[in-house]
Amino acid sequence: MKLRVDLLPYGSYSDTVLVVDVLRATTTAAVFLEQGASEVRFTASLEAALEQRGEGIVLAGERGGLPIPDFDLGNSPLEASGLNFTGRTVVMNTTNGTTAAHAAAASGKHVILASLRNAHAAARRARSLAVEEIAIVCAGREGRSGLDDVYTAGVLCEYLLAMGEWTLDDGARIALTVRRQVGDPLEPLAGSAAGESLERVGLGQDVQFCARISESTVVPVLAEHSELGLIFRS
Amino acid sequence: MKLRVDLLPYGSYSDTVLVVDVLRATTTAAVFLEQGASEVRFTASLEAALEQRGEGIVLAGERGGLPIPDFDLGNSPLEASGLNFTGRTVVMNTTNGTTAAHAAAASGKHVILASLRNAHAAARRARSLAVEEIAIVCAGREGRSGLDDVYTAGVLCEYLLAMGEWTLDDGARIALTVRRQVGDPLEPLAGSAAGESLERVGLGQDVQFCARISESTVVPVLAEHSELGLIFRS
Ligand SMILES: [Ca+2]
Ligand SMILES: [Ca+2]
Ligand SMILES: [Ca+2]
Repeated sequence: MKLRVDLLPYGSYSDTVLVVDVLRATTTAAVFLEQGASEVRFTASLEAALEQRGEGIVLAGERGGLPIPDFDLGNSPLEASGLNFTGRTVVMNTTNGTTAAHAAAASGKHVILASLRNAHAAARRARSLAVEEIAIVCAGREGRSGLDDVYTAGVLCEYLLAMGEWTLDDGARIALTVRRQVGDPLEPLAGSAAGESLERVGLGQDVQFCARISESTVVPVLAEHSELGLIFRS
Repeated sequence: MKLRVDLLPYGSYSDTVLVVDVLRATTTAAVFLEQGASEVRFTASLEAALEQRGEGIVLAGERGGLPIPDFDLGNSPLEASGLNFTGRTVVMNTTNGTTAAHAAAASGKHVILASLRNAHAAARRARSLAVEEIAIVCAGREGRSGLDDVYTAGVLCEYLLAMGEWTLDDGARIALTVRRQVGDPLEPLAGSAAGESLERVGLGQDVQFCARISESTVVPVLAEHSELGLIFRS
């Protein structure tokens, strides 16, 4: 089986894809499901999210780390972890994460949202779905690779290596090297451009929340791809 | 001063750019100059190279690691190191390296070809030319990041860090981490997809040649960008 890491979303995908935007979209999406949401929709645009406003719908997202006017919530996993979304649908749009998921869903057979918090469970789920390849796609930031996402990809690779035999591509080797060089996950997350930018706008606690490895077994898996967007359920 | 590493050529460049295709185009280009070539031209296409055939012109290049029919030489730095190119112009076209250099030259003010063999000299030259930013551009392989080029970028970053104060982007942090995790340069070069592919076609000795750090002080610098291509001189 092939294990591949795209340091940015730049390919097409034949099999199972783990999408990583650890700061913060793929972390937050899983928290919404943990907190009872029936589904999380990733829209292709901000406008497509606003159009879905209605009863039982929660709009969540950010631009440049800050909440979007007219949205109900930002993209804070820490905030989401203190709320109850039972029976609600959360409609999300973010700067990089939702775009990366759309790139993955354009060709991938199975699309999974992965983060540090659900890393082990997400790796296990991918392993059970994949037939020939698992591709880990790092969302990055404004078209540039992010240390936070590459580190997270390395953690996922490490779990996957323990689950079978793999042929690694260079991206996987780079991610594993980053993972092995850096012990404490808070270091690459807080030291990444995304982490520094969250710290600057007072969201450093979110970075700490996102740095906790394998605390959750909730894994958002793409269930439908409709005009409403990508619909993830656990 | 800003220090940035593009794990693939995906941006535009405002100042000084170090282009890295360590296996093998940027290594080989420097060897041609070392061995007496008056200039090395990187053409935008294979056809543009063939059109320049003539007296005093040596055509060199590869597709998928193998020589191109009607070209005089392949892309082997080891072979080039045993030949004399005094007074000759070498016209090169390769799969990834010449393309990356064209991407860099489209916007960069100063474009330098860097490899492990000239790493220290190339870093010093970039440092002397740069005003606000040095960008290291990894050529990669068929649109995917290469462990060989990212490792080489990390070596260049390490030299640059010793020469001044820098603001690092995430790409530079990733490259430095890879450099620090891996000691012997032969390991990431031979273990990269590019290195394995050269080994398969019997060019493993080229990989060893490319892995020698800072053996040369010859640095190809872009002197002209004409219809003939990118013209590098030392
Ligand atoms: Ca992010
Ligand atoms: Ca190469
Ligand atoms: Ca090349």
